[in-house]
Amino acid sequence: MHGYAARSDELQARLRRIEGQIRGLQRMIEEDRYCIDVLTQISSATKALQGVATTMLDEHVRHCVRDAIDQGAESADEKIEEALEVVHRLIKR
Amino acid sequence: MHGYAARSDELQARLRRIEGQIRGLQRMIEEDRYCIDVLTQISSATKALQGVATTMLDEHVRHCVRDAIDQGAESADEKIEEALEVVHRLIKR
Amino acid sequence: MHGYAARSDELQARLRRIEGQIRGLQRMIEEDRYCIDVLTQISSATKALQGVATTMLDEHVRHCVRDAIDQGAESADEKIEEALEVVHRLIKR
Amino acid sequence: MHGYAARSDELQARLRRIEGQIRGLQRMIEEDRYCIDVLTQISSATKALQGVATTMLDEHVRHCVRDAIDQGAESADEKIEEALEVVHRLIKR
Repeated sequence: MHGYAARSDELQARLRRIEGQIRGLQRMIEEDRYCIDVLTQISSATKALQGVATTMLDEHVRHCVRDAIDQGAESADEKIEEALEVVHRLIKR
Repeated sequence: MHGYAARSDELQARLRRIEGQIRGLQRMIEEDRYCIDVLTQISSATKALQGVATTMLDEHVRHCVRDAIDQGAESADEKIEEALEVVHRLIKR
Repeated sequence: MHGYAARSDELQARLRRIEGQIRGLQRMIEEDRYCIDVLTQISSATKALQGVATTMLDEHVRHCVRDAIDQGAESADEKIEEALEVVHRLIKR
Repeated sequence: MHGYAARSDELQARLRRIEGQIRGLQRMIEEDRYCIDVLTQISSATKALQGVATTMLDEHVRHCVRDAIDQGAESADEKIEEALEVVHRLIKR
Protein backbone atom coordinates (compact mmCIF):
# COMPACT_ATOMS: atom_id res chain seq x y z
CA MET A 1 0.00 0.00 0.00
CA HIS A 2 1.33 3.40 -0.92
CA GLY A 3 1.08 6.81 0.69
CA TYR A 4 -1.94 7.91 -1.31
CA ALA A 5 -4.06 4.82 -0.57
CA ALA A 6 -6.34 6.65 1.87
CA ARG A 7 -7.08 9.32 -0.71
CA SER A 8 -7.34 7.23 -3.84
CA ASP A 9 -11.12 7.74 -4.26
CA GLU A 10 -10.65 11.49 -4.15
CA LEU A 11 -7.74 11.30 -6.58
CA GLN A 12 -9.75 9.14 -8.99
CA ALA A 13 -12.63 11.63 -8.89
CA ARG A 14 -10.24 14.50 -9.67
CA LEU A 15 -8.68 12.57 -12.55
CA ARG A 16 -12.10 11.75 -14.01
CA ARG A 17 -12.93 15.46 -13.95
CA ILE A 18 -9.64 16.26 -15.70
CA GLU A 19 -10.37 13.57 -18.30
CA GLY A 20 -13.69 15.34 -18.90
CA GLN A 21 -11.87 18.64 -19.34
CA ILE A 22 -9.54 17.10 -21.92
CA ARG A 23 -12.50 15.71 -23.85
CA GLY A 24 -14.12 19.15 -23.57
CA LEU A 25 -11.00 20.63 -25.16
CA GLN A 26 -11.32 18.28 -28.12
CA ARG A 27 -14.92 19.39 -28.59
CA MET A 28 -13.91 23.05 -28.40
CA ILE A 29 -11.37 22.58 -31.18
CA GLU A 30 -13.88 20.61 -33.25
CA GLU A 31 -16.30 23.52 -32.91
CA ASP A 32 -13.52 25.98 -33.83
CA ARG A 33 -13.91 27.90 -30.59
CA TYR A 34 -11.93 31.08 -29.94
CA CYS A 35 -8.24 30.45 -29.11
CA ILE A 36 -8.33 32.39 -25.84
CA ASP A 37 -11.29 30.34 -24.57
CA VAL A 38 -9.43 27.13 -25.42
CA LEU A 39 -6.32 28.44 -23.64
CA THR A 40 -8.36 29.29 -20.55
CA GLN A 41 -9.67 25.73 -20.43
CA ILE A 42 -6.15 24.31 -20.91
CA SER A 43 -4.94 26.48 -18.00
CA SER A 44 -7.70 25.13 -15.83
CA ALA A 45 -6.91 21.48 -16.69
CA THR A 46 -3.18 22.05 -16.14
CA LYS A 47 -3.84 23.58 -12.74
CA ALA A 48 -6.07 20.64 -11.77
CA LEU A 49 -3.39 18.17 -12.88
CA GLN A 50 -0.77 20.09 -10.92
CA GLY A 51 -3.07 19.83 -7.91
CA VAL A 52 -3.17 16.03 -8.24
CA ALA A 53 0.64 15.99 -8.44
CA THR A 54 0.87 18.08 -5.29
CA THR A 55 -1.48 15.84 -3.32
CA MET A 56 0.40 12.77 -4.54
CA LEU A 57 3.75 14.25 -3.52
CA ASP A 58 2.45 15.34 -0.12
CA GLU A 59 1.13 11.89 0.72
CA HIS A 60 4.32 10.27 -0.57
CA VAL A 61 6.48 12.41 1.71
CA ARG A 62 4.15 12.17 4.71
CA HIS A 63 4.02 8.38 4.51
CA CYS A 64 6.51 6.58 2.24
CA VAL A 65 9.51 8.85 2.79
CA ARG A 66 8.77 9.46 6.44
CA ASP A 67 8.36 5.73 7.20
CA ALA A 68 11.62 4.87 5.46
CA ILE A 69 13.51 7.41 7.58
CA ASP A 70 11.59 6.52 10.74
CA GLN A 71 12.44 2.84 10.44
CA GLY A 72 16.04 3.61 9.61
CA ALA A 73 15.49 1.75 6.38
CA GLU A 74 18.57 1.22 4.24
CA SER A 75 16.59 2.80 1.42
CA ALA A 76 15.98 6.05 3.34
CA ASP A 77 18.68 8.00 1.50
CA GLU A 78 17.46 6.72 -1.82
CA LYS A 79 13.86 7.65 -0.98
CA ILE A 80 14.88 11.20 -0.05
CA GLU A 81 16.87 11.71 -3.26
CA GLU A 82 14.08 10.20 -5.35
CA ALA A 83 11.53 12.60 -3.82
CA LEU A 84 13.83 15.60 -4.31
CA GLU A 85 14.32 14.65 -7.94
CA VAL A 86 10.55 14.64 -8.47
CA VAL A 87 10.31 18.03 -6.75
CA HIS A 88 12.99 19.43 -9.07
CA ARG A 89 11.02 18.21 -12.07
CA LEU A 90 7.79 19.75 -10.75
CA ILE A 91 9.54 23.08 -10.08
CA LYS A 92 11.06 23.22 -13.56
CA ARG A 93 7.84 21.94 -14.99
CA MET B 1 -11.79 30.42 -38.54
CA HIS B 2 -9.24 30.83 -35.80
CA GLY B 3 -5.47 30.86 -35.77
CA TYR B 4 -5.12 27.16 -34.99
CA ALA B 5 -7.43 25.94 -37.78
CA ALA B 6 -4.57 24.67 -39.96
CA ARG B 7 -3.22 22.61 -37.09
CA SER B 8 -6.44 21.33 -35.55
CA ASP B 9 -5.87 17.70 -36.60
CA GLU B 10 -2.49 17.69 -34.95
CA LEU B 11 -3.92 19.35 -31.81
CA GLN B 12 -6.75 16.80 -31.64
CA ALA B 13 -4.25 13.94 -31.91
CA ARG B 14 -2.17 15.41 -29.08
CA LEU B 15 -5.26 15.87 -26.90
CA ARG B 16 -6.37 12.28 -27.53
CA ARG B 17 -2.95 11.10 -26.41
CA ILE B 18 -3.23 13.23 -23.26
CA GLU B 19 -6.71 11.83 -22.60
CA GLY B 20 -5.13 8.38 -22.80
CA GLN B 21 -2.47 9.42 -20.30
CA ILE B 22 -5.14 10.64 -17.86
CA ARG B 23 -6.99 7.33 -18.18
CA GLY B 24 -3.66 5.57 -17.66
CA LEU B 25 -3.23 7.53 -14.43
CA GLN B 26 -6.60 6.29 -13.17
CA ARG B 27 -5.52 2.72 -13.88
CA MET B 28 -2.21 3.26 -12.08
CA ILE B 29 -4.00 4.46 -8.95
CA GLU B 30 -6.48 1.57 -9.16
CA GLU B 31 -3.53 -0.83 -9.28
CA ASP B 32 -1.91 0.98 -6.34
CA ARG B 33 1.24 1.74 -8.32
CA TYR B 34 4.24 3.42 -6.68
CA CYS B 35 3.76 7.16 -6.03
CA ILE B 36 6.89 8.19 -7.90
CA ASP B 37 5.81 6.32 -11.02
CA VAL B 38 2.41 8.03 -10.88
CA LEU B 39 4.12 11.41 -10.43
CA THR B 40 6.36 10.76 -13.43
CA GLN B 41 3.29 10.06 -15.56
CA ILE B 42 1.56 13.22 -14.26
CA SER B 43 4.67 15.25 -15.18
CA SER B 44 4.58 13.85 -18.66
CA ALA B 45 0.86 14.65 -19.13
CA THR B 46 1.34 18.16 -17.76
CA LYS B 47 4.23 18.80 -20.13
CA ALA B 48 2.16 17.55 -23.07
CA LEU B 49 -0.74 19.81 -22.07
CA GLN B 50 1.62 22.75 -21.72
CA GLY B 51 2.85 21.96 -25.23
CA VAL B 52 -0.70 22.20 -26.60
CA ALA B 53 -1.11 25.56 -24.84
CA THR B 54 2.12 26.81 -26.39
CA THR B 55 1.11 25.78 -29.90
CA MET B 56 -2.31 27.35 -29.40
CA LEU B 57 -0.78 30.61 -28.18
CA ASP B 58 1.76 30.70 -31.01
CA GLU B 59 -0.89 30.29 -33.69
CA HIS B 60 -3.13 32.84 -31.97
CA VAL B 61 -0.39 35.46 -31.99
CA ARG B 62 0.86 34.62 -35.48
CA HIS B 63 -2.63 34.90 -36.97
CA CYS B 64 -5.40 36.43 -34.84
CA VAL B 65 -3.34 39.10 -33.07
CA ARG B 66 -1.17 39.84 -36.06
CA ASP B 67 -4.16 40.25 -38.40
CA ALA B 68 -5.93 42.59 -35.97
CA ILE B 69 -2.86 44.85 -35.81
CA ASP B 70 -2.16 44.51 -39.54
CA GLN B 71 -5.64 45.61 -40.48
CA GLY B 72 -5.59 48.43 -37.97
CA ALA B 73 -8.63 46.83 -36.36
CA GLU B 74 -10.23 48.79 -33.56
CA SER B 75 -9.90 45.64 -31.47
CA ALA B 76 -6.11 45.49 -31.93
CA ASP B 77 -5.34 46.93 -28.47
CA GLU B 78 -7.81 44.60 -26.86
CA LYS B 79 -6.36 41.59 -28.68
CA ILE B 80 -2.84 42.48 -27.51
CA GLU B 81 -3.89 42.86 -23.88
CA GLU B 82 -5.94 39.67 -24.01
CA ALA B 83 -2.95 37.72 -25.33
CA LEU B 84 -0.62 39.21 -22.70
CA GLU B 85 -3.07 38.27 -19.96
CA VAL B 86 -3.03 34.65 -21.15
CA VAL B 87 0.76 34.73 -21.23
CA HIS B 88 0.85 36.01 -17.63
CA ARG B 89 -1.40 33.13 -16.58
CA LEU B 90 0.80 30.58 -18.37
CA ILE B 91 3.94 32.02 -16.78
CA LYS B 92 2.48 31.93 -13.28
CA ARG B 93 0.94 28.58 -14.02
CA MET C 1 14.34 53.91 -27.95
CA HIS C 2 12.77 50.66 -26.86
CA GLY C 3 9.33 49.72 -25.65
CA TYR C 4 10.18 50.06 -21.97
CA ALA C 5 11.68 53.56 -22.23
CA ALA C 6 8.67 55.26 -20.61
CA ARG C 7 8.88 52.92 -17.63
CA SER C 8 12.64 52.71 -17.16
CA ASP C 9 12.68 54.67 -13.87
CA GLU C 10 10.13 52.30 -12.39
CA LEU C 11 12.06 49.27 -13.68
CA GLN C 12 15.31 50.61 -12.23
CA ALA C 13 13.66 51.13 -8.84
CA ARG C 14 12.33 47.56 -8.88
CA LEU C 15 15.75 46.17 -9.83
CA ARG C 16 17.45 48.13 -7.05
CA ARG C 17 14.99 46.63 -4.58
CA ILE C 18 15.74 43.13 -5.94
CA GLU C 19 19.47 43.82 -5.65
CA GLY C 20 18.82 44.69 -2.00
CA GLN C 21 16.96 41.41 -1.53
CA ILE C 22 19.90 39.46 -2.99
CA ARG C 23 22.30 41.22 -0.64
CA GLY C 24 19.87 40.46 2.19
CA LEU C 25 20.06 36.79 1.24
CA GLN C 26 23.85 36.84 1.55
CA ARG C 27 23.54 38.34 5.03
CA MET C 28 20.98 35.69 6.02
CA ILE C 29 23.35 32.89 5.01
CA GLU C 30 26.25 34.60 6.80
CA GLU C 31 24.12 34.71 9.95
CA ASP C 32 23.17 31.05 9.47
CA ARG C 33 19.46 31.84 9.39
CA TYR C 34 16.86 29.08 9.20
CA CYS C 35 16.58 27.44 5.74
CA ILE C 36 12.85 28.05 5.43
CA ASP C 37 13.27 31.78 6.10
CA VAL C 38 15.99 31.96 3.44
CA LEU C 39 13.73 30.09 1.00
CA THR C 40 10.87 32.48 1.68
CA GLN C 41 13.13 35.42 0.84
CA ILE C 42 14.36 33.69 -2.35
CA SER C 43 10.72 33.12 -3.40
CA SER C 44 9.99 36.78 -2.90
CA ALA C 45 13.03 37.89 -4.97
CA THR C 46 12.17 35.42 -7.73
CA LYS C 47 8.61 36.69 -7.89
CA ALA C 48 9.83 40.30 -8.07
CA LEU C 49 12.24 39.38 -10.88
CA GLN C 50 9.47 37.57 -12.73
CA GLY C 51 7.41 40.73 -12.38
CA VAL C 52 10.13 42.78 -14.07
CA ALA C 53 10.25 40.22 -16.89
CA THR C 54 6.50 40.47 -17.33
CA THR C 55 6.51 44.28 -17.49
CA MET C 56 9.41 44.17 -19.95
CA LEU C 57 7.62 41.65 -22.17
CA ASP C 58 4.35 43.59 -22.05
CA GLU C 59 5.99 46.84 -23.15
CA HIS C 60 7.98 45.02 -25.83
CA VAL C 61 4.82 43.53 -27.34
CA ARG C 62 2.74 46.71 -26.95
CA HIS C 63 5.37 48.83 -28.67
CA CYS C 64 8.21 47.09 -30.52
CA VAL C 65 6.27 44.11 -31.89
CA ARG C 66 3.13 46.10 -32.54
CA ASP C 67 4.98 48.85 -34.42
CA ALA C 68 6.81 46.33 -36.59
CA ILE C 69 3.50 44.73 -37.63
CA ASP C 70 1.74 48.07 -37.94
CA GLN C 71 4.34 49.45 -40.30
CA GLY C 72 4.41 46.25 -42.30
CA ALA C 73 8.09 46.03 -41.47
CA GLU C 74 9.99 43.24 -43.16
CA SER C 75 11.14 42.23 -39.71
CA ALA C 76 7.57 41.75 -38.41
CA ASP C 77 7.66 37.95 -38.70
CA GLU C 78 11.02 37.81 -37.03
CA LYS C 79 9.84 40.06 -34.19
CA ILE C 80 6.80 37.85 -33.58
CA GLU C 81 8.86 34.65 -33.47
CA GLU C 82 11.47 36.27 -31.24
CA ALA C 83 8.80 37.35 -28.76
CA LEU C 84 7.17 33.90 -28.78
CA GLU C 85 10.52 32.28 -28.11
CA VAL C 86 11.00 34.48 -25.05
CA VAL C 87 7.49 33.60 -23.89
CA HIS C 88 8.29 29.89 -24.23
CA ARG C 89 11.39 30.35 -22.10
CA LEU C 90 9.44 32.26 -19.44
CA ILE C 91 6.73 29.57 -19.37
CA LYS C 92 9.24 26.74 -18.99
CA ARG C 93 11.22 28.84 -16.59
CA MET D 1 23.78 25.04 12.35
CA HIS D 2 21.42 24.50 9.49
CA GLY D 3 21.33 22.05 6.65
CA TYR D 4 23.12 24.30 4.19
CA ALA D 5 26.08 25.10 6.49
CA ALA D 6 28.51 22.86 4.60
CA ARG D 7 27.67 24.59 1.35
CA SER D 8 27.39 28.18 2.50
CA ASP D 9 30.56 29.34 0.68
CA GLU D 10 29.25 27.97 -2.58
CA LEU D 11 25.83 29.54 -1.97
CA GLN D 12 27.41 32.93 -1.19
CA ALA D 13 29.43 32.78 -4.40
CA ARG D 14 26.31 32.01 -6.42
CA LEU D 15 24.40 34.86 -4.76
CA ARG D 16 27.23 37.31 -5.45
CA ARG D 17 27.11 36.31 -9.10
CA ILE D 18 23.34 36.85 -9.15
CA GLU D 19 23.80 40.26 -7.49
CA GLY D 20 26.19 41.08 -10.33
CA GLN D 21 23.58 40.02 -12.87
CA ILE D 22 20.98 42.29 -11.26
CA ARG D 23 23.39 45.21 -11.38
CA GLY D 24 24.11 44.30 -15.01
CA LEU D 25 20.38 44.52 -15.70
CA GLN D 26 20.27 48.05 -14.31
CA ARG D 27 23.14 49.02 -16.61
CA MET D 28 21.38 47.47 -19.60
CA ILE D 29 18.25 49.53 -18.95
CA GLU D 30 20.35 52.66 -18.43
CA GLU D 31 21.97 52.05 -21.82
CA ASP D 32 18.52 51.45 -23.38
CA ARG D 33 19.46 47.96 -24.54
CA TYR D 34 17.10 45.89 -26.67
CA CYS D 35 14.14 44.39 -24.69
CA ILE D 36 14.83 40.82 -25.77
CA ASP D 37 18.45 41.02 -24.57
CA VAL D 38 17.28 42.34 -21.21
CA LEU D 39 14.70 39.54 -20.99
CA THR D 40 17.36 36.93 -21.75
CA GLN D 41 19.48 38.26 -18.89
CA ILE D 42 16.45 38.27 -16.53
CA SER D 43 15.77 34.62 -17.49
CA SER D 44 19.33 33.73 -16.66
CA ALA D 45 19.23 35.45 -13.25
CA THR D 46 15.87 33.84 -12.43
CA LYS D 47 17.21 30.41 -13.30
CA ALA D 48 20.29 30.99 -11.12
CA LEU D 49 18.10 32.11 -8.21
CA GLN D 50 15.87 29.07 -8.68
CA GLY D 51 19.02 26.95 -8.53
CA VAL D 52 19.95 28.45 -5.16
CA ALA D 53 16.42 27.71 -3.89
CA THR D 54 16.73 24.11 -5.05
CA THR D 55 20.09 23.57 -3.34
CA MET D 56 18.73 25.17 -0.17
CA LEU D 57 15.66 22.95 -0.20
CA ASP D 58 17.69 19.81 -0.89
CA GLU D 59 20.03 20.43 2.03
CA HIS D 60 17.11 21.32 4.28
CA VAL D 61 15.35 18.03 3.53
CA ARG D 62 18.53 15.94 3.61
CA HIS D 63 19.53 17.31 7.01
CA CYS D 64 16.97 19.32 9.00
CA VAL D 65 13.84 17.37 8.02
CA ARG D 66 15.59 14.01 8.02
CA ASP D 67 17.15 14.56 11.46
CA ALA D 68 13.81 15.62 12.96
CA ILE D 69 12.17 12.40 11.71
CA ASP D 70 15.17 10.26 12.58
CA GLN D 71 15.24 11.45 16.17
CA GLY D 72 11.49 11.08 16.47
CA ALA D 73 11.38 14.78 17.31
CA GLU D 74 8.01 16.15 18.34
CA SER D 75 8.47 18.73 15.63
CA ALA D 76 8.85 16.12 12.85
CA ASP D 77 5.28 16.54 11.57
CA GLU D 78 5.63 20.30 11.60
CA LYS D 79 8.96 20.13 9.75
CA ILE D 80 7.43 17.93 7.04
CA GLU D 81 4.44 20.22 6.51
CA GLU D 82 6.66 23.30 6.52
CA ALA D 83 8.89 21.79 3.82
CA LEU D 84 5.88 20.75 1.71
CA GLU D 85 4.47 24.26 1.95
CA VAL D 86 7.73 25.69 0.60
CA VAL D 87 7.68 23.11 -2.21
CA HIS D 88 4.13 24.15 -3.12
CA ARG D 89 5.24 27.77 -3.32
CA LEU D 90 8.22 26.88 -5.51
CA ILE D 91 6.03 24.81 -7.84
CA LYS D 92 3.46 27.57 -8.24
CA ARG D 93 6.20 30.10 -8.48
